[in-house]
Amino acid sequence: MSKKIKKIGVFTSGGDSPGMNAAIRSVVRTCAFHNIECVGIYRGYEGMIEGDFKPMDARSVKGIINKGGTVLKSARSLEFMTPEGRKKAHQHLLDANIDGLVAIGGDGTFTGAMIFNEEFDFPVMGIPGTIDNDIFGTSHTLGYDTALNTVVEAIDKIRDTASSHNRLFFIEVMGRDAGHIALNVGIGAGAEEILIPEEDLGLERLLESLRRSKQSGKSSSIVIVAEGDKIGKNVFELKDYVEENMIEYDVRVSVLGHMQRGGSPSCFDRVLASRMGVKAVESLLDGKTNLMVGLLSDKIAVTPLDQAVKGKSEINMELLRVSDIMST
Amino acid sequence: MSKKIKKIGVFTSGGDSPGMNAAIRSVVRTCAFHNIECVGIYRGYEGMIEGDFKPMDARSVKGIINKGGTVLKSARSLEFMTPEGRKKAHQHLLDANIDGLVAIGGDGTFTGAMIFNEEFDFPVMGIPGTIDNDIFGTSHTLGYDTALNTVVEAIDKIRDTASSHNRLFFIEVMGRDAGHIALNVGIGAGAEEILIPEEDLGLERLLESLRRSKQSGKSSSIVIVAEGDKIGKNVFELKDYVEENMIEYDVRVSVLGHMQRGGSPSCFDRVLASRMGVKAVESLLDGKTNLMVGLLSDKIAVTPLDQAVKGKSEINMELLRVSDIMST
Amino acid sequence: MSKKIKKIGVFTSGGDSPGMNAAIRSVVRTCAFHNIECVGIYRGYEGMIEGDFKPMDARSVKGIINKGGTVLKSARSLEFMTPEGRKKAHQHLLDANIDGLVAIGGDGTFTGAMIFNEEFDFPVMGIPGTIDNDIFGTSHTLGYDTALNTVVEAIDKIRDTASSHNRLFFIEVMGRDAGHIALNVGIGAGAEEILIPEEDLGLERLLESLRRSKQSGKSSSIVIVAEGDKIGKNVFELKDYVEENMIEYDVRVSVLGHMQRGGSPSCFDRVLASRMGVKAVESLLDGKTNLMVGLLSDKIAVTPLDQAVKGKSEINMELLRVSDIMST
Amino acid sequence: MSKKIKKIGVFTSGGDSPGMNAAIRSVVRTCAFHNIECVGIYRGYEGMIEGDFKPMDARSVKGIINKGGTVLKSARSLEFMTPEGRKKAHQHLLDANIDGLVAIGGDGTFTGAMIFNEEFDFPVMGIPGTIDNDIFGTSHTLGYDTALNTVVEAIDKIRDTASSHNRLFFIEVMGRDAGHIALNVGIGAGAEEILIPEEDLGLERLLESLRRSKQSGKSSSIVIVAEGDKIGKNVFELKDYVEENMIEYDVRVSVLGHMQRGGSPSCFDRVLASRMGVKAVESLLDGKTNLMVGLLSDKIAVTPLDQAVKGKSEINMELLRVSDIMST
Repeated sequence: MSKKIKKIGVFTSGGDSPGMNAAIRSVVRTCAFHNIECVGIYRGYEGMIEGDFKPMDARSVKGIINKGGTVLKSARSLEFMTPEGRKKAHQHLLDANIDGLVAIGGDGTFTGAMIFNEEFDFPVMGIPGTIDNDIFGTSHTLGYDTALNTVVEAIDKIRDTASSHNRLFFIEVMGRDAGHIALNVGIGAGAEEILIPEEDLGLERLLESLRRSKQSGKSSSIVIVAEGDKIGKNVFELKDYVEENMIEYDVRVSVLGHMQRGGSPSCFDRVLASRMGVKAVESLLDGKTNLMVGLLSDKIAVTPLDQAVKGKSEINMELLRVSDIMST
Repeated sequence: MSKKIKKIGVFTSGGDSPGMNAAIRSVVRTCAFHNIECVGIYRGYEGMIEGDFKPMDARSVKGIINKGGTVLKSARSLEFMTPEGRKKAHQHLLDANIDGLVAIGGDGTFTGAMIFNEEFDFPVMGIPGTIDNDIFGTSHTLGYDTALNTVVEAIDKIRDTASSHNRLFFIEVMGRDAGHIALNVGIGAGAEEILIPEEDLGLERLLESLRRSKQSGKSSSIVIVAEGDKIGKNVFELKDYVEENMIEYDVRVSVLGHMQRGGSPSCFDRVLASRMGVKAVESLLDGKTNLMVGLLSDKIAVTPLDQAVKGKSEINMELLRVSDIMST
Repeated sequence: MSKKIKKIGVFTSGGDSPGMNAAIRSVVRTCAFHNIECVGIYRGYEGMIEGDFKPMDARSVKGIINKGGTVLKSARSLEFMTPEGRKKAHQHLLDANIDGLVAIGGDGTFTGAMIFNEEFDFPVMGIPGTIDNDIFGTSHTLGYDTALNTVVEAIDKIRDTASSHNRLFFIEVMGRDAGHIALNVGIGAGAEEILIPEEDLGLERLLESLRRSKQSGKSSSIVIVAEGDKIGKNVFELKDYVEENMIEYDVRVSVLGHMQRGGSPSCFDRVLASRMGVKAVESLLDGKTNLMVGLLSDKIAVTPLDQAVKGKSEINMELLRVSDIMST
Repeated sequence: MSKKIKKIGVFTSGGDSPGMNAAIRSVVRTCAFHNIECVGIYRGYEGMIEGDFKPMDARSVKGIINKGGTVLKSARSLEFMTPEGRKKAHQHLLDANIDGLVAIGGDGTFTGAMIFNEEFDFPVMGIPGTIDNDIFGTSHTLGYDTALNTVVEAIDKIRDTASSHNRLFFIEVMGRDAGHIALNVGIGAGAEEILIPEEDLGLERLLESLRRSKQSGKSSSIVIVAEGDKIGKNVFELKDYVEENMIEYDVRVSVLGHMQRGGSPSCFDRVLASRMGVKAVESLLDGKTNLMVGLLSDKIAVTPLDQAVKGKSEINMELLRVSDIMST
């Protein structure tokens, strides 16, 4: 049986996302609420290996709930992939009397946490923080809702200029393996077509669709392209292809880039982060380990970390149909 | 058996909310997709009584998905509460060959629709549009998510000045019968206390909580008050009461007011509106009636209108606990 | 002749405004650039009296340029109005080897600085920080541009609901002594009428104007009321008066309140704060004192503090005429 | 002597910018105020050649003051560069009884207007609408202030992720011929270096500056690059160059692109547009022609169109110095 946890370490790892600070704050305050200590670990596994720790009390996380990024910073650690690296990290945790970990990040972060748990029987809980929403076991990852709003606001601005000039825009949004962002912002921003990794529309059907929309009287159009779409061309090649095969449109490209990862979290992400932090800490206190906290059917739930890593977050096929109907 | 619907009327009624335009657009485009006609009815039941109609094709709803308010306008109609008023409305619908209705609004709107259906056997579907989220049968009403973001952004600004001056702010947010907004923005904005209609904290416990927070080292505090809270004092009386009983704080009041109802809808509300519009129209085409489209466990579902009106949208008690822990 | 300044103290006083942090950052970094020391003084004159100081180097102001409020906090100090209070403050400055001051605030702040200078021959420079823009010697005070954007964005949201319901809204904006905010947001938000302290429109003419606008086909209207307007009624009394004398409108009131003071500063305010901070520090280094840094004809300029305090920042009468024409 | 103007045509041409709609509204309402007619000309000179006109009354411009883009649409017209094209345009104006023009756009727009005036003695007034602020005779072009805010908000988001990961970002902003945007957002967003067309920093000095900032303890840095900078490398080549010559940084690139042109105009741009529209129309009514309306020292002023086109809008060298000091 697990012994009672007395000091929890919290860290962020992998790509940052809005809501990570709110999750850190929640972990710290939940520890304070239960009268146990909390330690911030800087730069993810890298700081764990270096012993880059800082004690955090309830007041230390004041004023961060609405800040993007992560006050604990993030990094990808090659050294943690080696047994020696993990041994150093473990020793630093022991030295600091840390006896439980809350890891905020994505698949890579959780894989590291599972290996660490296996090797040292160290209690770990995961909180899914990534804008891509590509993690099994939660309907929403931290930062996803914020990123959707950031992207639709950017596209609304591009729409202003697109419709003033009767232009066709290809807009690349984040999502290397998953089309969640593309699909939702495509509907939200009223896009003509949405190209996602999960579905190969095909170049010919894209052209057809654009021609049809032109004929139906639309003067400007927006096509959303997920980074990882499978159409076989990047967004600039798509532009060239369409320009060669359709003379009617003035075509432009916009790659939204890293601004999608930042910004003040939405109310949804702040509340979700707060709920997840509470559950992660209380799960450790209940003797649980190797679980990821998620949102399922609007309720906080846990999923074994290995399932979270192995499972696939499926896109909602209903949305593809809604998108088709909306671009009538 | 119901005859095949060929022309749908759509209207907005009651208080407006962000996402209503996106829902109108979705109803119109879904009609176009299924090759049936769509007619916009202005100012809710008022315009129905006056025959204030306008045919809407797919292009007519261009550029409205991101606009707050409702292009069809809204109103409360006393005349529709009379049999004579409803008879006039029915005649106008018959004259215009409208044989199905999509009503976007809240409880009052749905009650009107049910009576109308009962009297004239007229097919009606409801879409819940209100920022208050106080409707049974959907986890989210249209505009609720947008309002949450509008409110936390406003409170973030107030927080800047509160913490610069070590002040205590009472902030009144919308929600006459339901504390959904107050509870979520309270967590999202890091409020010290949240006063909602569903729970009576009591004045003495409020003072205690504020004193405790002051002692714990907090230099400024925010208390969220739902319009309909049960503490027995309005937000200005609360200020006076606290000032009389606690000398340490400079207390201020802010009533956020109608700005909470407007603004460009969030991505979530735009997608939800698009999905709901599709379901409402296709339900009519399937011969259904007297149902409200809602979101339940992230899926589009329908609930009988009478249940939607009679049922109560319960607040999530887990959030009250999270709020308590977060204000540690 | 003045001796060479070696250590500058910087503080914020009076009501906070967006851009104060950017100004603090600029003062600190300009000191670092010139290799002199800089000390932050907390809570304005109050902290000066208590010796609540903190050394600030270039890195200490990282990440604050885009934050509303003031990291040095602000307060109004009764004790500084007494000779004893000022004597204590002076002693603390001497003890800390501070030999020059940059005061960021408004009229009250500058008056305090002048008295302090007179009594102790202590070099002082002022930077105008207030959203009201009511200071002579600068076309723009810090925070004014940000507040204008905050207010028009709020009114845009109210407009959504006003035009959905054919309502008349009275919106109270900040500006106790000056109509700058009201006049600009009135034009920027397309208001029907603007009531400012500098001009008494008269109740009868207000009614006439509203009737005329109703007749001209406007379905909703917005009237901006500056806090300090001279029409003799507050915004709620105005509502009652108009409702009694005009039956056609459903009238509502919104008091925007303290959210107007907060928020991330606009680019304009960040750049202005940066320029003002440089000029304030370099003026002290040049042996100057008792001056306020301002923006005049787009150029950084200085004005004697006593003129800044005594002078009146006139509103631009051209804007009143533009407003009249725009509400045609 | 010029005959009295009775009907004014207004159009937008060239790249769109936020505030164009507010300017159109102002032109239309000022005409209504003076009881003269106003006609909207679609797609700039292209629509003039085709006679694509629409009468506009005061109510027709309702609800557009806060919209980005241009309701009259914009285009670049090759045909207007030919005498035949201009002859057609002139005939359409005569047929419609239009006897004065207000042209909203940039250098190309004004050049077209001057040639047209010369050939047909047709009264024309110009309003400078472009986000680049690269027009002589006005301190601010329409849309410039809005673009500054759009860009700093985007960079604030990128800063979140940059500082979470200790990264160096090269961010390309608009400005093919002028560094106004780059210089101001560079200061406003706290950039380490700003590369603009007006000044060639040199690659070696850029490296030095980045090394120095790294040594001074900065963990992340942002370099703003104007589209038209003269350093001889595009933003992606810059990234490669820096990565080859500095190992300490993880370098990323972001090209902000067309979102910079859109969005709801700032209060400043709305007020400026309103003032400019009044002046443009009243100048025509006063018998003036071939002038551009501008803002000089906060006052509305006019400049001959040929000077506006030939002159150069100089950047403020003070800002370069402020930027250097701020990156201490």
